[in-house]
Amino acid sequence: MAALSLRIDLEPEGRIGPGKIALLESIATYGSISAGAREMNMSYKRAWDLVEELNTILGKEVLSAQKGGRHGGGAQLTPVGLALVSRFRAIERAAHAAAETHLAALQAEIAAR
Amino acid sequence: MAALSLRIDLEPEGRIGPGKIALLESIATYGSISAGAREMNMSYKRAWDLVEELNTILGKEVLSAQKGGRHGGGAQLTPVGLALVSRFRAIERAAHAAAETHLAALQAEIAAR
Repeated sequence: MAALSLRIDLEPEGRIGPGKIALLESIATYGSISAGAREMNMSYKRAWDLVEELNTILGKEVLSAQKGGRHGGGAQLTPVGLALVSRFRAIERAAHAAAETHLAALQAEIAAR
Repeated sequence: MAALSLRIDLEPEGRIGPGKIALLESIATYGSISAGAREMNMSYKRAWDLVEELNTILGKEVLSAQKGGRHGGGAQLTPVGLALVSRFRAIERAAHAAAETHLAALQAEIAAR
């Protein structure tokens, strides 16, 4: 019936949700912002804006540039970027597990009416 | 550091998030759509649209009208509306509890870098 979608609100700084996390994962997988963005059908500019937003929210850089600069060269996650991705996914798994029973019960309650 | 914001995706039907749930709670508390909407600084039309969206998503009515019709009279939650609100809040509590340790760890990891 339902999928759970999680956002971490860091008011007033901003929101970190599944979209930004998936972008970081894609950048890490493909080794550059441009390739990671392409894989997500996202413009380089959009991807870069999202990365900058994360940097601002966390007050630390989530990517480190490699040879050739950000555009031409590669990029990889910093320890902060890695921590963010793995903690977000862990919270997601924990929340899904915790919600599973309630979602099933809600579905049954709605069906019964 | 962070508050967790939860959404239940019922693709392709729609999303149920904290805003719609708070509106239902407000309607239940004040006993009518207009009073519940006012308390949330929301127009009657906006509130009614959100209620209709919930009805469509669930395929069941979340409110029942009382004497005087929907506009003039009162409104209360149906059993489906009540189940939705209480399950959503329960999922939220469970997810927050599950996430607490990870959020604290993430905060420490970011601060340490």
